[in-house]
Parts: sequence; structure tokens; C-alpha cells
Amino acid sequence: MSNYDRFLSRAAERMQQSAIRKMGAVIASGRDIVSFAPGYPAPDTFPWQAFAEIAAELLGSRDGPVLQYGPTRGYRPLLDVITSIQHTRGMSTAIEELLVTTGSQQGLDLVARVLIDPGDVILVELPTYVGAISAFRNVQASMVGVPQEADGIDLAALDASWQRLRAEGRRIKFLYVVPNFQNPTGLLIGLGKRERLLEWAGRRDVLIVEDDPYRDLYFEDSAGEADVRPIKADDRSGRVVYLSSFSKTLAPGYRVAWIAAPAPLAAKFEMAKQAEDLLTGSLDQRIIYEACRRGVLERQLPILRQHYARKRDVMEQALKRDLGDLVRWPKPKGGFFLWLTLPGSIDADDMSMRAIEEGVVYVVGEAFYVNGEGKNTMRLSFSAPSHERIEAGVSRLARVVRAELAALATGASTAGPGAP
Amino acid sequence: MSNYDRFLSRAAERMQQSAIRKMGAVIASGRDIVSFAPGYPAPDTFPWQAFAEIAAELLGSRDGPVLQYGPTRGYRPLLDVITSIQHTRGMSTAIEELLVTTGSQQGLDLVARVLIDPGDVILVELPTYVGAISAFRNVQASMVGVPQEADGIDLAALDASWQRLRAEGRRIKFLYVVPNFQNPTGLLIGLGKRERLLEWAGRRDVLIVEDDPYRDLYFEDSAGEADVRPIKADDRSGRVVYLSSFSKTLAPGYRVAWIAAPAPLAAKFEMAKQAEDLLTGSLDQRIIYEACRRGVLERQLPILRQHYARKRDVMEQALKRDLGDLVRWPKPKGGFFLWLTLPGSIDADDMSMRAIEEGVVYVVGEAFYVNGEGKNTMRLSFSAPSHERIEAGVSRLARVVRAELAALATGASTAGPGAP
Repeated sequence: MSNYDRFLSRAAERMQQSAIRKMGAVIASGRDIVSFAPGYPAPDTFPWQAFAEIAAELLGSRDGPVLQYGPTRGYRPLLDVITSIQHTRGMSTAIEELLVTTGSQQGLDLVARVLIDPGDVILVELPTYVGAISAFRNVQASMVGVPQEADGIDLAALDASWQRLRAEGRRIKFLYVVPNFQNPTGLLIGLGKRERLLEWAGRRDVLIVEDDPYRDLYFEDSAGEADVRPIKADDRSGRVVYLSSFSKTLAPGYRVAWIAAPAPLAAKFEMAKQAEDLLTGSLDQRIIYEACRRGVLERQLPILRQHYARKRDVMEQALKRDLGDLVRWPKPKGGFFLWLTLPGSIDADDMSMRAIEEGVVYVVGEAFYVNGEGKNTMRLSFSAPSHERIEAGVSRLARVVRAELAALATGASTAGPGAP
Repeated sequence: MSNYDRFLSRAAERMQQSAIRKMGAVIASGRDIVSFAPGYPAPDTFPWQAFAEIAAELLGSRDGPVLQYGPTRGYRPLLDVITSIQHTRGMSTAIEELLVTTGSQQGLDLVARVLIDPGDVILVELPTYVGAISAFRNVQASMVGVPQEADGIDLAALDASWQRLRAEGRRIKFLYVVPNFQNPTGLLIGLGKRERLLEWAGRRDVLIVEDDPYRDLYFEDSAGEADVRPIKADDRSGRVVYLSSFSKTLAPGYRVAWIAAPAPLAAKFEMAKQAEDLLTGSLDQRIIYEACRRGVLERQLPILRQHYARKRDVMEQALKRDLGDLVRWPKPKGGFFLWLTLPGSIDADDMSMRAIEEGVVYVVGEAFYVNGEGKNTMRLSFSAPSHERIEAGVSRLARVVRAELAALATGASTAGPGAP
């Protein structure tokens, strides 16, 4: 039997491999490639020594629950720690409003499964996080994109979309936003706009799903604690589902993140999680808990802010030097990403084979657009490579862009519509 | 806002908390309760020392990928190890047929999402694993139960169900079975019956989802290597999706399991997993890999077989002594569970408050039936409690059963239909 199509669900028929993770396969090929593709944190910043000590104590304890099944909601002391973290971010969160998730990707998936029937509308930013697009596609949501301005999502366009969709009889369940250092654009939603978004959601009876993994990684020359105040911090009526994670601040390999949501929704997310993976890894949760309790996380944050801000600087300087005449980008005020707009004649997807040959990879911007736009854009992650590799990668990218422009001028672009 | 019903998906409206995990909350209440409810492995059997050494080496290495994002398919050396394990079980499995999952619960969920549209039929054993019921319910499958005989599922009833459903125009996607030491009954499907099942599935063009977490835990006085040969070992046409796990043999807190499936299906499971949690924990996968590579798993298996066989003996002896005149059960030849049938007048669910008061918990058998049967049955896990606790728990259970019978005889049962 080689054809299984008759057994597939409608959701499975449409499932696609993530553009980012496809690039991962290219990188794994062993060639000398500078990868600006996946949003990997820098492993040399991980608190290895602290993790090793914590793991030694936990496994040395022979304490059954460290390696046993446990409650789906999460390890209770970790939930308490998350309550404190929520508090420092301006949110008062009860235990029954919290759920530990297996990475924020699971959070997005649970939210989608609990809220969406096929055809229900999710409003998303243009562009938006590609992992959210995958999770939402897999529940057969209908995603409608809303343009962004310099201070985030365009409120007039948002309401116009809502009105048009409602006139068409569509059911609009939620708006998905990444307000802090958005993946992929690095944009920050302005504080006034956050308030107006919340007011809008109440007026239009739409939920807001606020995805906030980069909040702690603001760059002190251009943003501060006050700028990253979550929308949920002003949510008095239970309108916002808030997701965050330890993946960018401690380490992603542990797969520990959380959802904070109104208790009735949190209960449903828990039931969905029970059937999805029973619980998030017990040892992982304990290690994260201990890293918080012992102040490891707190000590990491200023280090990480500096580390990534410097890499941002290196990338910006290299881009100005090598490509300043041809490309533009909004200055990242935090996070992992720089969003590049190329000359309009370039298709970043068509150019990607040339880039791989030259030894540099990126994620094509189109992957982040739910409406097919963004062909001349790309996402560059400056988080993982060293300064030297960032410089080398940008030089390579500059050669690629110039070669592509030259080829386009002579009608000899390397790749046609059939290119990967 | 207190009512979120208008935001819920149809799947979410029907989500229920697992009967087993509800019991977990009772146990966590801190009372002296002997728990026969969850199928927890015995933590005193975990190879703590080996795990501690492995974790120390991995985290001491400061090797980035140990705590970094990684491929959705799984850590490649672990996939190679799983290929070898498959081989020792009689299956020849290529890398592109494998996927590491975040516990077998995720495997069940991925299978359901990739194969099932709302209303599609899944054939299941009566009774069957409650975690599978949850995963299948969450994709709005229509589950149809087939009775079991002493050597497993009743083939005549199976085909009769298939014919009836087809006559009704229903789409039957797969048969779900747990052939080795089934959860909850402990039954083993006979070898001849396995072959006939495979032949039947080919004839009726139905897939088989074979869930095999207990395969290595056969009790040498009543079963051996030959008795646990997977159905998939004889699958020449790519008809079987096979799931197994390290949770029962190394430790469940790591959440590492796998699916082996025809390559086109494995590719879809991978895409579904990408959107569900990106990857299974990196450190967890490395620890499991090292435990396999260093022979820890191999050394564990004979120890575990003896450990659980002795506990089975202790439970059977206690049951014979305290309740032999009132209950019956099939002798478990492996695994974690003993399936108890009570006098027909008893409703195990109604009795559960009395049991908690007496200090013993079980899972009501009804939770494992997709057709509402099994009210006078219960699943007892002998895996986690000590010999002394098993004996104490059975004594308590005996008091509960006798008190319930006495109360029923005088019309004074403690609990009505509204009881938990």
C-alpha cells in the first residue's frame, strides 16, 4: 500500500512542513552555512553550570515525582513561581487561571483546538508568527491578516476587517498578536494602542490571544520595562489569553511554557492537554522551577539583554555597510529578529537557492503572511550566530542580493516559479 | 465575563476530564489513601544513579544541542536506537517511518488528528484505554466498541460491526488495539488472532493502530518473548501504525515515546507534531538515548518483569484471601493492571465515595467502555504501591465491597446517580 490519501483527515490533507524547520534540514546538511533562519537562542548563554547542579540534586534525591507522571496543570511550585512572574509583569493571576504547556507551541495549539471550529476566523497581524499559522491551519481556521504600522497592528484596518467579516456572516473568535518584539518583524505595539486594542476587543466581543515570549529581552537603548506591559495587565473582563515561555530566557530544550487565561478557558485547555500529552516533562518542570527559585533566571535576564542587543548592533552595522543602499528594516528594540525588505523586484523564495550556494540561509518573509504578500521580505535571526558569523553571513547575503539584482536586470534569475 | 461558551469549539464543548486524572487530584489531597488508580511505574525501580551520571555528563558538556531546539522527527541517534529496538521486536523499520513523540499520549493524539474527521469511525476494544478514548473524542471520532474474549478482541463481532457500519454508510478509519497486557484488562491477544486481525484489516481496508507500551513487561511464569510479537511484525502491506514508549521501562517523567508507521503517514504525523509542540524535550531525548546506548534499559527489563510479577502475585493473593468469594479477574500475564469484575448489583462509580472514605481508590471500569457498560468493573494498578500497601489497599477494598453489598441489601447505598 503506498497511497494513504483515503485515510487522511481534511486537516491532514492541508498540513504543510514549516518553512523554518525545512531550513533546519538544509543547515543540518553539514555545509558551511551561516544560519539566520531559526530563532534559536544562543547556547553559550545558557546557565550550564546551574543546570548541572540542579539536575544532580534532583536526580540524586531519588524523589519519585521527579521522574513520575504528574498533574496536567503543572508542577504546583512551578505554577506558584509563574504566578510571581505574572505579578512582576503587572498581572494578577490565580492558580486556576494557569496551565504549564509543552512549549508555547503547545499553548497555541491548545488555544486553537479549544476555540476554533473549521471556518472560524482568527485575525492575525501581517506578517505573523509562522508557528501560529501552522497551529491555526491544523484546526482549519480561516486566518485573516491585518496590516501593521510602525507601532503595531493597524486599528482602523482591524475594525474594517471585523465589519466586513461580520457582514459576511463569519464567526470571529479571536485576534492573535505578539505585542513585544514580534516574530517576525521585531515590532513593539505602542502602549496607547494596547489599550485601544483591549477596548476594541470588548466592544466587538472578540478574545485576544497575546503571545509574549520575548518580553524580557528588551534592548535598554531603545525599550524598557514600561514599554512591554502586556495587554492582559489591563484586562479587567477576562478577554485576554496570555502565553509566555522559558524557552528564550532559560533554554528551549526543556519545553516549558505557560498559558494564563480566564479560569473556565484554562480548565478547557487543561482537558485538551490531558488528551494531547498528559503532562509536560516532570524533570524539565523541576529544573525550570529550581532555576527560578535559585535566582538563575533573574541573573540571566540582564546578560541576555546585552548579549542580543550587541548582536543586533553587529547585524545592523553589517547591513548598513554591505546593503544599506538596497534594503530597509525597522530597528529591533528587543527579541531575536530583524525584518528585511528587499528591492521590490526580488523574490526571496526564488533567491534562496542562490543564498544556500553562497552559504547563508534566512526564512522567506512570505511564510509569515497569510495572504501571499511579502515576497520581497525575509526574517533574519541574529540570536544564535557569533558576531563574526553574523558579519560573514551579511556579506554573503549582500553578494546574493547583488547577484540576484544583476541576474534580474539581464533576465537570468537562477530560479523560476518551480524553485524550492 | 464569566461565560465563554460562545467561544468554544464543538470539540471543546465535549471535552471531559480523565477519570484517572480526576482520581489523581483525590490522592494529592494528603489523606492516607492506597492508590490503585493511576498506572504509575514504581519509582524505586528507576535507574536513578545512571540517570544522574548521564545528566551530569550531558549538561557538563555545554554542548548546545542538548538544550536547544532540534528536529521534530527526533534526535537522530535516538531514532537509530529505536530502529534497533523495533528490530528486536521483529520489525524492520526505516528512519523515515519513525517519529519521536512526547509520550504515547501524543502519539494517539497525532494519529487521531491525521486520520479522523468528525464522525469517522474508530473501532475499539470493550473496554479500552481511557487516554485513547480522550484523544479520539477530542477529534470528534465516533467510537464503536467490540467485545473481547479471553484471547482478545472478538473477530466475529468485529466483522459484524464493520458490516453494520458500512451498511449505514459510515467511514471506518482504523481499529485501535492494545495487544499486550491491555490497559485496562491485562489481556493478551493470542498469536493466531493477531494474524487473523491483520488479514481482516487488509480485507476490509481498515488501518490498525497498535498501542504497545507494556510489551517488555511480560511475567515469565505466564508469558514470554514469543507471546508479545507485535501485529506490525507481520505487516507486509503497511497496514499498521505502531506506538510504543520508554515511559513504563525507563521513566514517564521524560515523556519520550515513538510511532512507527508507513512513511507517508509518518510524514503527516511529523507535520502535525510540528504545529503541536515543535519537538520532544531535547535533554529528555538525550538521556533516554544514553540510557539505551549504555545498556541501562536492557539491564532494567528483567528487574522490572520480576518486580511487577511479584506485585501481581501479592495483589492476587490478597484478593483471593479477602474477596475471592465475590469478585473475579483474568490473571495478568504482564503489565500494570488487574481488571476486577464485582457482583452485578454493585456500581463501582457509586461506590467510589465509600472507597475514598475507607482509604482506597481505583478507576471505575465504566470509564474504559465507549458504550456505557462495565458499571460493576474496576481497574486496579498494582505497579506503584509496595507489597504492604497493596495488601492494605485490598483489605480496605474488601471492606468497601462488603459494606456496599450490605447497604444495597438494605436499600441504603451511600451514593445515588449524582455521586462523583
